[in-house]
Amino acid sequence: MLNTRLKVSEIMAEKYVPMWKNLNMDIEKHNQLLNGLGQYYTSVVLPQKNRPKAMGYFDFVVSEIHGLRVQELAELRAAGKKVIGAFCIYAPEELAYAADATMVGLCGGADFSVPDAEAVLPRNLCPLIKSFYGFRLNRTCPYFQSSDLVVGETTCDGKKKVYELLNELIPTYVLEVPHKPDTPKGKEFWFKELEAFKAELEKVTGNKITAEKLKESIELINNKRKALKRLSDLRAKSPSPISGLDGLLIDQISFNDDVKRFTAKVNELCDELDERVRKGEGVAAKDAPRIMVSGCPMAIPNWKLHSIVQEAGASVVVEESCVGTRYFTNLVEPKGDSVNDLLWALVEKYSQIPCACFTPNDRRVKSVKELAEQFKVEGIIYYTLQNCHDYNVEAVKIERAAKAQDLPMLKIETDYGTGDAAQIKTRVEAFLEIIRGKQ
Amino acid sequence: MLNTRLKVSEIMAEKYVPMWKNLNMDIEKHNQLLNGLGQYYTSVVLPQKNRPKAMGYFDFVVSEIHGLRVQELAELRAAGKKVIGAFCIYAPEELAYAADATMVGLCGGADFSVPDAEAVLPRNLCPLIKSFYGFRLNRTCPYFQSSDLVVGETTCDGKKKVYELLNELIPTYVLEVPHKPDTPKGKEFWFKELEAFKAELEKVTGNKITAEKLKESIELINNKRKALKRLSDLRAKSPSPISGLDGLLIDQISFNDDVKRFTAKVNELCDELDERVRKGEGVAAKDAPRIMVSGCPMAIPNWKLHSIVQEAGASVVVEESCVGTRYFTNLVEPKGDSVNDLLWALVEKYSQIPCACFTPNDRRVKSVKELAEQFKVEGIIYYTLQNCHDYNVEAVKIERAAKAQDLPMLKIETDYGTGDAAQIKTRVEAFLEIIRGKQ
Repeated sequence: MLNTRLKVSEIMAEKYVPMWKNLNMDIEKHNQLLNGLGQYYTSVVLPQKNRPKAMGYFDFVVSEIHGLRVQELAELRAAGKKVIGAFCIYAPEELAYAADATMVGLCGGADFSVPDAEAVLPRNLCPLIKSFYGFRLNRTCPYFQSSDLVVGETTCDGKKKVYELLNELIPTYVLEVPHKPDTPKGKEFWFKELEAFKAELEKVTGNKITAEKLKESIELINNKRKALKRLSDLRAKSPSPISGLDGLLIDQISFNDDVKRFTAKVNELCDELDERVRKGEGVAAKDAPRIMVSGCPMAIPNWKLHSIVQEAGASVVVEESCVGTRYFTNLVEPKGDSVNDLLWALVEKYSQIPCACFTPNDRRVKSVKELAEQFKVEGIIYYTLQNCHDYNVEAVKIERAAKAQDLPMLKIETDYGTGDAAQIKTRVEAFLEIIRGKQ
Repeated sequence: MLNTRLKVSEIMAEKYVPMWKNLNMDIEKHNQLLNGLGQYYTSVVLPQKNRPKAMGYFDFVVSEIHGLRVQELAELRAAGKKVIGAFCIYAPEELAYAADATMVGLCGGADFSVPDAEAVLPRNLCPLIKSFYGFRLNRTCPYFQSSDLVVGETTCDGKKKVYELLNELIPTYVLEVPHKPDTPKGKEFWFKELEAFKAELEKVTGNKITAEKLKESIELINNKRKALKRLSDLRAKSPSPISGLDGLLIDQISFNDDVKRFTAKVNELCDELDERVRKGEGVAAKDAPRIMVSGCPMAIPNWKLHSIVQEAGASVVVEESCVGTRYFTNLVEPKGDSVNDLLWALVEKYSQIPCACFTPNDRRVKSVKELAEQFKVEGIIYYTLQNCHDYNVEAVKIERAAKAQDLPMLKIETDYGTGDAAQIKTRVEAFLEIIRGKQ
């Protein structure tokens, strides 16, 4: 039945064509994208065995990710609300929701748009960056087409410089993230950046961000983060009651779905998983090596590494990633009720994200160690997108930390193409042999 | 005679061995480096025709760059003074000199040390970064070995992250450079960074940075910048009275030589060039295409592109580069006498450096346009070190600016190896054909 649902992309295409035309999308090219996505999902995600029933909702969301969800955004916009597109968990969504806007993750996880980007950008740039720029150029991402403003950040050189070019295609506001962590002057600077972004959102939406609205939106997003943390903690159980691919998928969907509905659905899933844990039911073989994936974010439809690891018989139990623990580990915890108090709570929360843009980034080393213990991890696969200097160089420190914990680590540097899939498979299999030899 | 002088590396090696041993250098490996450097200089720089007599001094400096100059630093240190090593023109040397320290450029321009670095660092990182890290690892850079402190900066992801690893080998202080230009909060932040660096220098040197000392050092460095600007302006003449390679060489040496002596020697050279200009004497053929090189810095002994361009019959008349116009274009111009006034003058000066780390970096686009006019440039060679995202992506905007001025632009992305020299030569020759077709 799910297979059938995923194969309706052509029917869906008919239904949503007027909307996509309204969004000035390239209909023909977009159809190619949709068909490719549908086929990939059908061949990689759906055939997994023993999936929780509650995954049905998330499969449905993916099948409608360029349809129903985009229609919801169109309806919001028709009602005068604004949509803010973002790429990075440093974009403070609490502020967007406090201005009655909706924040959505923009497309940037597919090889599909990379050739278009390479007509302008250097080839030896991170695939995520090329992907998002290509998606805006070729007009096949309905989230880009629905965004009234894009919010970027200075978390890496590549994004920082490409936002300048993106700004020529769609208004792009860049937040400057200070790179030395935990310094008073860095936090003050970040506070001022948030103040300026608040003013920008007020201008774009025409809505004032009051203390009350901001408190509400902090609670809204905290609840989403709590649900994702609950799911993550369930994945820490032995055996893990849900596959790594499904866990990743939910983290990915969290950037696009309606926040309240999504939070409720994640909690429903967790109720089902609680039951599985009570019964000791898992999805992988009992002796399946427990793997942490640590490194660069994986946006939809980047399922390459997870599917390879699962097919090789291992279980990805945690993603130390922006699409993973970095997003939901800490909550926003205000120490007062004024707008300033609430903004300072955002400063504190966001300063704790252990992004590799920080120097030094000891918090990430500590986090990897702690997660390895909590999740009873038997090996770390370090995931770097090609040409991502921050994560690529930081691997040196993570590898040392892994060694200190007697954990094998495999470093994979890859792009969104499938050309290296066989090679990665071979390397992962050899890596799992090492882990099995230690079991 | 110059040839003879450059071939004395073995004799020099004998003379300085005790000093190098004191600096804990790898003597054998360092000998290999010196011999390679000497041969390269002898084959590339010295055979140039019609060189100004005053270049003799600079040839001497290069021949003694691991000898006499290092001995001077050793003598300063024996007298209780400190040496601060740096990589970037964002490191405010005025502050170092005001603390009675000497600032020197560290090695980072040679392929020689890259294999050592690649044992630790990713291969697909900028050659400059791999080179400097390798030089510290393999202990063949006497400037690293003579430095009491290294000052780094957050001008790019690669350096930022590798400074963390460098700090394990030598104390490395990192200045955070704000990336959005000309914002009051960015300038305030940079002011505080300079204040903190001032305090660090006072700690390391034991000397207080007074307003008087800072004024003196500002004048000292302003004079150096003025001399380099004078030289640059002379290169703008038609015909240019000095070769591009010699012009570059002097900019390179400016980071290592004694400031006062260097300034005097550059002015002596300029006196000689004034005379040449008066007589209408140039070094290249009259119709030699006038080329601007724009992009990444070229540290000693990075003479690859310039020598190829010259051999192909063109004349590099200006480097829009950190080893070039970005260094000397603006002076520090205090508006008062207090330490705060002087620090603010540094903030203003350094904020004007059009580094590609800024977003957006309109100042650089403007600078390239103005330099193209001033230097009567007929073509731009855009120079990117491999994997330098900032300069690689910014090429898009520079190319547009060039097009708007009807200037052909050739983009070269390369490392420090010689493997692509023949390919670059072919591309440069084809590029010069295009220019000649327009003459």
